[in-house]
Amino acid sequence: MKEILNNYIEKALSNIKVKEVLIRELGPREGFQMEKQFVDTSIKIEFINKLSHTGLKYIEVTSFVNPKWVPNLSDAEEVLRKIDRKQNVIYAALVLNSKGVDRAINLVKHLNTTIFADENINIKNNNKTIKESLKEAEEIIKKCIDNDIILEGGISAVWGSPLNPEIPIDNVLMILDFWVKNGIKNIMLADTTGEANYISTKAVLSILKDRYPDVNFIMHFHDSRGLGLVNVLASLELEISIFDSSVAGLGGCPFAPNSAGNICTEDLIYFLHTLNIETNVNLEKLISSALYIQNILNKKLPGKIKELYNQFQTLIS
Amino acid sequence: MKEILNNYIEKALSNIKVKEVLIRELGPREGFQMEKQFVDTSIKIEFINKLSHTGLKYIEVTSFVNPKWVPNLSDAEEVLRKIDRKQNVIYAALVLNSKGVDRAINLVKHLNTTIFADENINIKNNNKTIKESLKEAEEIIKKCIDNDIILEGGISAVWGSPLNPEIPIDNVLMILDFWVKNGIKNIMLADTTGEANYISTKAVLSILKDRYPDVNFIMHFHDSRGLGLVNVLASLELEISIFDSSVAGLGGCPFAPNSAGNICTEDLIYFLHTLNIETNVNLEKLISSALYIQNILNKKLPGKIKELYNQFQTLIS
Repeated sequence: MKEILNNYIEKALSNIKVKEVLIRELGPREGFQMEKQFVDTSIKIEFINKLSHTGLKYIEVTSFVNPKWVPNLSDAEEVLRKIDRKQNVIYAALVLNSKGVDRAINLVKHLNTTIFADENINIKNNNKTIKESLKEAEEIIKKCIDNDIILEGGISAVWGSPLNPEIPIDNVLMILDFWVKNGIKNIMLADTTGEANYISTKAVLSILKDRYPDVNFIMHFHDSRGLGLVNVLASLELEISIFDSSVAGLGGCPFAPNSAGNICTEDLIYFLHTLNIETNVNLEKLISSALYIQNILNKKLPGKIKELYNQFQTLIS
Repeated sequence: MKEILNNYIEKALSNIKVKEVLIRELGPREGFQMEKQFVDTSIKIEFINKLSHTGLKYIEVTSFVNPKWVPNLSDAEEVLRKIDRKQNVIYAALVLNSKGVDRAINLVKHLNTTIFADENINIKNNNKTIKESLKEAEEIIKKCIDNDIILEGGISAVWGSPLNPEIPIDNVLMILDFWVKNGIKNIMLADTTGEANYISTKAVLSILKDRYPDVNFIMHFHDSRGLGLVNVLASLELEISIFDSSVAGLGGCPFAPNSAGNICTEDLIYFLHTLNIETNVNLEKLISSALYIQNILNKKLPGKIKELYNQFQTLIS
């Protein structure tokens, strides 16, 4: 029977066309921005250095936003100056305006920025209307080009928000057109408050991929309703191969109501490995980073696999 | 654009053939068996009565097992005598031997029993080898027939265990053949410690459904590695329409290492509704039951949706 079972497994695997996935690790930025108590700069640096040794190829380290609103990331410059940089790892940061780019020059070669497709949340988060954000984005793009920084553009709240759960498809397309028109090829689609599901993920992605077959879409799911990995599966079926996630399931958006953490990196990687998809990440090392930060923050973080590992270590010792 | 979006949503939905799902709610049995402190009988009764008013059609209320091993369910008879029974709701219990059936006579019309496909865990959980359990099951079956009790048979650890992660397919088939030979048409397949994934769920189900196209398979997933709902999706693709789950994500197996709770009923129902699948359950009432039991047990239970609801209530009030 084992042979028959293996045949069925191979048949099921052969339906999955994506063979390798790039994970953009957001834990340091998504996680620390939510913490009420200031996390020591030295801890941030140690955590990022640990993540650098897991095989992750992309780490969003911090953000250059107003320290009045996100005090925990006020040490962005110091963190970026002091981390050990591994070759082949991209160290990126988030900016929401062109002042942020000024601070980032000479410290990073990759920046991310995002505009919310929901007008209300964009005002809360970016302190601007969508139109004003597009104007600001022009400045961001210009400064990045002038300073040889690669910019990735995002669209947030693509699947709506708790207060307005309809998919704001016209705003999504307007922002998407703007990024493409400005030469941006990697575009992040964020489900900021966990509204997306298996069906709506596929529907939105189908429209966007039809419109721009050459864009690399990066999926950014929050796990507010437990559908994070289901939505990853929907994306894989549409041949998406870049995903944002946060180790231990850290994170959330400080200005969006009901936003739970990102999907958890180590759980995502375990899932991808069960689909025979290569991630180049060492799962054990990543779990060890997850347990490290859970101990530091001294609260139970959402990721599942790390708990199992904790128990199992006890069990076999 | 809204029309195009709706067309894509309809197209995606049309791939899902299952239109209605029966949930077997296991929270009272799975949840309380794990609690170290005795939960008052009156609380159990109130909790079950609440669940009876959510639209759930099947509730596993308790188990008739040795009170020495599961002291928290030693009040099985009293609970079953005192709950308010709604018409059209099945109130079931678990037994692991024929003595359990003796205790259940006149108290329930539905019993569940299960045998582990993993020899080691069967010995730990059922205190018997698999062969001995099959022998005992013959007694259970006979007594159920004599007493007009409907018996559903289970196979546990179908996808292996942490200590032996290979799928014990030969044992699975042996136990399956036994149930079928004895006239049992509803057969539960349990992933006791969360080893199953999207591929292996499909592979095992394909083999079993090929062998017995007329059996109703009931899927019982634990969410130890976060793949619970992904595995539900795999099962739906193979047209499974009965699922076990526990409100708030209660539960686990006291004798199986690393077993996290069942998949969470309200998260499952939210997921099914996003797929346009009917469950006949009122999600708000179910969330209210989940928050009730979370408050009583005074610890954060795994389900996601209930937390969101808590936050949202605060937000809009």
